[in-house]
Amino acid sequence: MDNQREMKQGDAEKVKSILWEKEQLFLLDQTRLPGEVLLEEQNSVEQVWDAIKQLKVRGAPAIGVAGAYGLVVAMREQTSLDRTAFVAELRKQAAYLDSSRPTAVNLHWALTRVVESVERSRLQSGGDLFAVLQKTAEEIHAEDIQLCRSIGEHGVSLMREGMGILTHCNAGRLATSDYGTATAPMYLAHGRGMGFRVYSDESRPLLQGSRLTAWELQQAGIDVTTITDNMAAFVMQQGLIDMVIVGTDRVAANGDVANKIGTLGVAIMAKHFDIPVYVACPASTVDLSTATGEQIVIEEREAEEVTHFGLRRTAPEGIKVRNPAFDVTPHELVTGIITDRGIIRPPFSETLKAAFCQ
Amino acid sequence: MDNQREMKQGDAEKVKSILWEKEQLFLLDQTRLPGEVLLEEQNSVEQVWDAIKQLKVRGAPAIGVAGAYGLVVAMREQTSLDRTAFVAELRKQAAYLDSSRPTAVNLHWALTRVVESVERSRLQSGGDLFAVLQKTAEEIHAEDIQLCRSIGEHGVSLMREGMGILTHCNAGRLATSDYGTATAPMYLAHGRGMGFRVYSDESRPLLQGSRLTAWELQQAGIDVTTITDNMAAFVMQQGLIDMVIVGTDRVAANGDVANKIGTLGVAIMAKHFDIPVYVACPASTVDLSTATGEQIVIEEREAEEVTHFGLRRTAPEGIKVRNPAFDVTPHELVTGIITDRGIIRPPFSETLKAAFCQ
Repeated sequence: MDNQREMKQGDAEKVKSILWEKEQLFLLDQTRLPGEVLLEEQNSVEQVWDAIKQLKVRGAPAIGVAGAYGLVVAMREQTSLDRTAFVAELRKQAAYLDSSRPTAVNLHWALTRVVESVERSRLQSGGDLFAVLQKTAEEIHAEDIQLCRSIGEHGVSLMREGMGILTHCNAGRLATSDYGTATAPMYLAHGRGMGFRVYSDESRPLLQGSRLTAWELQQAGIDVTTITDNMAAFVMQQGLIDMVIVGTDRVAANGDVANKIGTLGVAIMAKHFDIPVYVACPASTVDLSTATGEQIVIEEREAEEVTHFGLRRTAPEGIKVRNPAFDVTPHELVTGIITDRGIIRPPFSETLKAAFCQ
Repeated sequence: MDNQREMKQGDAEKVKSILWEKEQLFLLDQTRLPGEVLLEEQNSVEQVWDAIKQLKVRGAPAIGVAGAYGLVVAMREQTSLDRTAFVAELRKQAAYLDSSRPTAVNLHWALTRVVESVERSRLQSGGDLFAVLQKTAEEIHAEDIQLCRSIGEHGVSLMREGMGILTHCNAGRLATSDYGTATAPMYLAHGRGMGFRVYSDESRPLLQGSRLTAWELQQAGIDVTTITDNMAAFVMQQGLIDMVIVGTDRVAANGDVANKIGTLGVAIMAKHFDIPVYVACPASTVDLSTATGEQIVIEEREAEEVTHFGLRRTAPEGIKVRNPAFDVTPHELVTGIITDRGIIRPPFSETLKAAFCQ
């Protein structure tokens, strides 16, 4: 196991989804959480491809960073190539990595950015071009951390001592390079000594809430409670929730928000109990070319995620199933969007344009 | 396996939670559903106690009927006793069966009714008293079927060709002697040739929706789709749901309704989408001595139901958990209560009293 590190609970506070240390790439195998905390050293581009494919690394920002470093891993033995051969090989490896998760927009964006940085440089040797490549990957990594930190800095203004926060799915440190999006205000507030309670929906069918969010907040010493998705209304009714914060995969120009299935229900329940709903994301998630949420196509995933639990069947053979991966929360239910550039508030069709259309 | 019957899918349409055939008691082992359909002959009172304890038979009405027949099983070898000894033994066995699930009000009620029927009779021989006992158990069974059928007869008036119905947990045939409560209108409408779609929340943590409701409706040939609890808002938003029908464990005098955790959320989402919410139950579930839902104590169950799935841990070690078994839906969110005596509508504090306080 020389290429793996098994972490003990407690060590794990420092665990990141992606560790770049002494020019070696380590990815945390999130499929093993919360049972096992294993950082796997990535020794080949095929291994990185596989880690992305198998969801060992997941979350749009984290996948982008992993892909960029995947190119470093792919090219580090290619420094003897000349410029033409190096660029050709780099493009080939980028296309290969891109195929690991074709719908991940952020992966494609990060790979393209690395390739273009090399293409734009006038350097000729493989060694020099590799240095450009690695620098770009490190920049993408550093920027992701900074973006999430900025989301946290803006979001922490919403937090109060003793409050209760509900979150859904995992828009946490594990989905990004650090801090997370929905969790960034929590990590910053906790770091400043603020006490608060987090309720984490387990988030069926894949349980990112109980497996990942509960785990990462627990590792950081934040007071977190796991509930099943259908307990959210109960804890709200009991007066335990003062604010909802969730992540998002895409924000439309009118403020409609696509996020993990179940977010819509949480937002409706929060409105019923007069609890504010905040959505946290980097500015790049705001897609002004999508006019409304109705234009967002909802991916329907395999039935087995709903009919089985692990390998055990829990619904009858032959049963019909719906399994939408996402839902769209209409902007009327969104109190504000916490971005790295500040908190955007309604009317979103005006404020989003003003903030992000320049 | 001479005391078991394994049913094939398809046979199973006729499967009941409780089968009383040629004076033999069979209980369907619901813990094995949907993987295995096994009717177990009950050869001893200890076996019946165990079946109730282990939730092989569950649902308040079904437990009551199983308990009553459990006394038949307990006493059928005791017919040579004289009256005094027979009554003493009957009381002992009733207390024993009552201990299998102490919080099940319906079990206690059914056992008491059987014991009192014997005590009230003036017959002297064990054989004659046993006949009274068995007749009372059969009456309880027949009445339960009739009550559910009456709920269905009233509820079917709410159904329309092609409609979509959402239900939560299992208030079905499996929870009663037949028809179920929430499902009774569906079985009657289906029997009359009406086409409609049912969406069944899986109902975490114990998955009664996917394991039981989806299975029993599927067996009957009803068009049923399993969804995770957090997809309910999505299917409502898509316009797929025209009505919600759920069961209830207790209706307070003001119309507040206690039911399986998650019902409150469903009702809030339905209100948001302007979808009517009906609650189905026998009149005995209306408890006029409970003024409002606030007086109903919510049982909190073991954390393992939330942190594990089957035997597999899905949430981190040491995580805090809430696991309320029920929630209370305030009467403002309830469109009507479908009982065996008719559909009760707001203002519930007046209409419930008028219907049930005589």
